[in-house]
Amino acid sequence: MSFGRVAIIGLGLLGGSIGLAIRQHLPGVTTTGYDADPAVRLRAGERRLADRICASAEEAVKDADLVIFCVPVGAMGAAARDCAGALKPGVVVSDVGSSKATITEALCAALPGLAVIPAHPVAGTENSGPDAGFASLFQQRWCIITPPEGADRKQVDQLIDFWEALGAMVETMSAPHHDRVLAVTSHIPHLIAYTIVGTASDLEEVTRSEVIKYSAGGFRDFTRIAASDPTMWRDVFLNNREAVLDMLDRFLTDLAHMRESIIAGDGEAMFDLFTRTRAIRRSIVALGQDDARPDFGRSDHEG
Amino acid sequence: MSFGRVAIIGLGLLGGSIGLAIRQHLPGVTTTGYDADPAVRLRAGERRLADRICASAEEAVKDADLVIFCVPVGAMGAAARDCAGALKPGVVVSDVGSSKATITEALCAALPGLAVIPAHPVAGTENSGPDAGFASLFQQRWCIITPPEGADRKQVDQLIDFWEALGAMVETMSAPHHDRVLAVTSHIPHLIAYTIVGTASDLEEVTRSEVIKYSAGGFRDFTRIAASDPTMWRDVFLNNREAVLDMLDRFLTDLAHMRESIIAGDGEAMFDLFTRTRAIRRSIVALGQDDARPDFGRSDHEG
Ligand SMILES: NC(=O)c1ccc[n+]([C@@H]2O[C@H](COP(=O)([O-])OP(=O)(O)OC[C@H]3O[C@@H](n4cnc5c(N)ncnc54)[C@H](OP(=O)(O)O)[C@@H]3O)[C@@H](O)[C@H]2O)c1
Ligand SMILES: NC(=O)c1ccc[n+]([C@@H]2O[C@H](COP(=O)([O-])OP(=O)(O)OC[C@H]3O[C@@H](n4cnc5c(N)ncnc54)[C@H](OP(=O)(O)O)[C@@H]3O)[C@@H](O)[C@H]2O)c1
Repeated sequence: MSFGRVAIIGLGLLGGSIGLAIRQHLPGVTTTGYDADPAVRLRAGERRLADRICASAEEAVKDADLVIFCVPVGAMGAAARDCAGALKPGVVVSDVGSSKATITEALCAALPGLAVIPAHPVAGTENSGPDAGFASLFQQRWCIITPPEGADRKQVDQLIDFWEALGAMVETMSAPHHDRVLAVTSHIPHLIAYTIVGTASDLEEVTRSEVIKYSAGGFRDFTRIAASDPTMWRDVFLNNREAVLDMLDRFLTDLAHMRESIIAGDGEAMFDLFTRTRAIRRSIVALGQDDARPDFGRSDHEG
Repeated sequence: MSFGRVAIIGLGLLGGSIGLAIRQHLPGVTTTGYDADPAVRLRAGERRLADRICASAEEAVKDADLVIFCVPVGAMGAAARDCAGALKPGVVVSDVGSSKATITEALCAALPGLAVIPAHPVAGTENSGPDAGFASLFQQRWCIITPPEGADRKQVDQLIDFWEALGAMVETMSAPHHDRVLAVTSHIPHLIAYTIVGTASDLEEVTRSEVIKYSAGGFRDFTRIAASDPTMWRDVFLNNREAVLDMLDRFLTDLAHMRESIIAGDGEAMFDLFTRTRAIRRSIVALGQDDARPDFGRSDHEG
């Protein structure tokens, strides 16, 4: 049995994509949507991101069987408190936040006694806002569900069915484990990308225009990641601090080794590492988690 | 006046792309090709990467007006010595190596008295070998030419014309400046990508299969870069050591600041950096150096 009415709180990239994907894949389900920003609500109405865009969070959630919070990680608690009084008993409360342990705490604290089952679809782009969403965002992407201890098995299964219906492949794990996995596969890559793009823009002897011109040598891939939403990512680093710091320190240790290899002119150590890292790429492409065409099949390589 | 006969030494991604681009854009020019690897020569013949594939470097270069060395940075000196006796007077000697100062030295030492004008087309993919090349690789990409002091202006202009005919936009600068610019736009991004992919594959509590599964959160972009040719990149780091170490140390300083911001919970510092870095992305897309579609327009987002 699926959810009949789904409320989406926050109508940016994630919220909008969920609304559009429900319309495409679950035509029997009705959706309501709310966003704190009136301009976003207006645009969401024009794009029909949900069947009905509501003027308040309470109105959006009052008949919902499933409420999904699609707001920045740091706004989850406030967004939940905004509609706490209007949720009906038996509702399943979920979210799409990029970190899970602190969000679980915040949602449970704001909504005592309700069924909170957090989730994180590992799918996104560098764009955000009500124009960024599209129905196929979750297609063939993983969605991680982190049921708290004692979660109702039937409700968890319902949520799994929901995400699978939107095209995702679902895995469940604990929130702390999620936070460690994502620290390495997503949070540290973003931290590194933001930092190196910052370093490059502060150089004096290499001008910004040179950095931009010659970015095709590798740098441009980092700039795409470093163009992601600042609010979203600030919140991720503030909320997944421990796992991020732990992974960062491991990376720093490894980078110090590479630095030593360069100083020592140790070509063998470099060659070994550079050979090992190719295997991971092959597996990612084989599992359909990336584009196998060279250079991601950027348009300039179609010829 | 363009070059009538071009010899390409090394028939991998770069050499092959030059051969194919000459056939497409400069039909009056005849090409010869040589590669140290017999299997590569065979495949190069099948793909017609050059008009004539030769069994020795000497044979390939003997009538050439322009010789382009397209071998790994560390092999430039040896490749030049291999054909030193056969080069005709007045020939222009160039290359496509990713670092420039040490290559200039190596080519000048191997070919005393000849005109050496090094170049670096800032264009590539993660693939290598005789099957990787394609005619449009240089289209709309920058090619940096680093004429040594005293280089003949007419010969430099001839080389500029040549690269422009293949579709590239040309800029000239000194070899040491090139090496600093590329350290930040290409070499450090590769060093970081190789290292973090290595860090991720060595974790114990996060399995390799988890890293692969959830790579769509950002990590997969790094794996593409870290799948680049190990020989090529070992040589780059061995040959551009000084500039790489200098840029690496600046990056490490900035990363230490970010680490402090995370520890201190300083959201404002993060937000500031994450906002600044978006501007660079916009300029890169505006200048046609990357794909503006979200997520590089990976195929999964066409829907
Ligand atoms: N982007 C990705 O790649 C990605 C991938 C997976 C998961 N996520 C997670 O998905 C969530 C949303 O990200 P997104 O990319 O969709 O962000 P987004 O495009 O910026 O959308 C978030 C929307 O929520 C609104 N909002 C903020 N506080 C609110 C509140 N208290 N009540 C109602 N609406 C509120 C925002 O309005 P204002 O702009 O006015 O604040 C904004 O319109 C985040 O938790 C993020 O970690 C993102
Ligand atoms: N790939 C990029 O993205 C990129 C971009 C710009 C510039 N570059 C530069 O372009 C150059 C070539 O890179 P690539 O990507 O084309 O490499 P590649 O695909 O591996 O091709 C290089 C070829 O040169 C051959 N070779 C090695 N030593 C030789 C010698 N002494 N004489 C003749 N042939 C020899 C190699 O044979 P073996 O395999 O048997 O050694 C290989 O077939 C490098 O200097 C690199 O720095 C690369």
